Amino acid sequence: MEINISAIGILHTDHKTKDEAPIQGAFDPDAKGIVEIFPEFAEGLKDIELFSHIYLFYHFDRAEPGALIRHPFLDDTPHGIFATRHPCRPNGIGITVVRLVERNGNRLRVTGIDVLDGTPLLDIKPYVPRFDCHPEASEGWFAGKDSRRKPSGRE
Amino acid sequence: MEINISAIGILHTDHKTKDEAPIQGAFDPDAKGIVEIFPEFAEGLKDIELFSHIYLFYHFDRAEPGALIRHPFLDDTPHGIFATRHPCRPNGIGITVVRLVERNGNRLRVTGIDVLDGTPLLDIKPYVPRFDCHPEASEGWFAGKDSRRKPSGRE
Repeated sequence: MEINISAIGILHTDHKTKDEAPIQGAFDPDAKGIVEIFPEFAEGLKDIELFSHIYLFYHFDRAEPGALIRHPFLDDTPHGIFATRHPCRPNGIGITVVRLVERNGNRLRVTGIDVLDGTPLLDIKPYVPRFDCHPEASEGWFAGKDSRRKPSGRE
Repeated sequence: MEINISAIGILHTDHKTKDEAPIQGAFDPDAKGIVEIFPEFAEGLKDIELFSHIYLFYHFDRAEPGALIRHPFLDDTPHGIFATRHPCRPNGIGITVVRLVERNGNRLRVTGIDVLDGTPLLDIKPYVPRFDCHPEASEGWFAGKDSRRKPSGRE
């Protein structure tokens, strides 16, 4: 069964290439971006400014699904794609948590955004720490892995 | 531009109807479920068991997009759909953070799952507290809103 999804907006960032984009938004908390919601969906933003943090759901439009076991950017050991946040996934859906700075009509000014400029936006949801913050969660293979340049050939 | 997405598995839970399903997984942390990944994607689970918590991305297959401003389950004031977690969204993508208890081949035993039985699974990503936990985030209109029965006629 196919599920049809379409963009509700577009993400404007300073990350013009994959090499420039941080591996995770948490690695570049000052990275600025504009979330532009298409006018026909703007009404759905009512009260979004009550939230300091929001989830952005987006489409990895410059990545293709590929091998199910692969090297992520942060590790030199391969892992299953579902144990990574790599963009080349069976369904190319990404999420990032950003800080919402300001709303101007159908445009949201955000910081801590790690996605490529021009990325199609699929959804916005409020980040609610009571539901979404799990400080006791293990770090898995991410433990001790710090930000670095993306190794070449990892897509 | 349409983006084609298809299920990579199916979620088995005890929530047979919308009224039975908790409003958020955090409201029913003991709710058990099985994440079944279709065999052709099972290889992508390698090392998933290193993580205590995972994100499940799923399709709200029994909800239709609707009004952009609506009453959520937890509040009696209407909000924009993007300021809620309501299932009736322009793109029907849901996420939930669950605790991963055990992996048996292509089946994951999880707890804290709030989705309906039979829901199509779209993606799994590891939950990494360094990237995903923001205890300083505001609660917006969710502040002080506790679990309750879903009011009738909200869907």
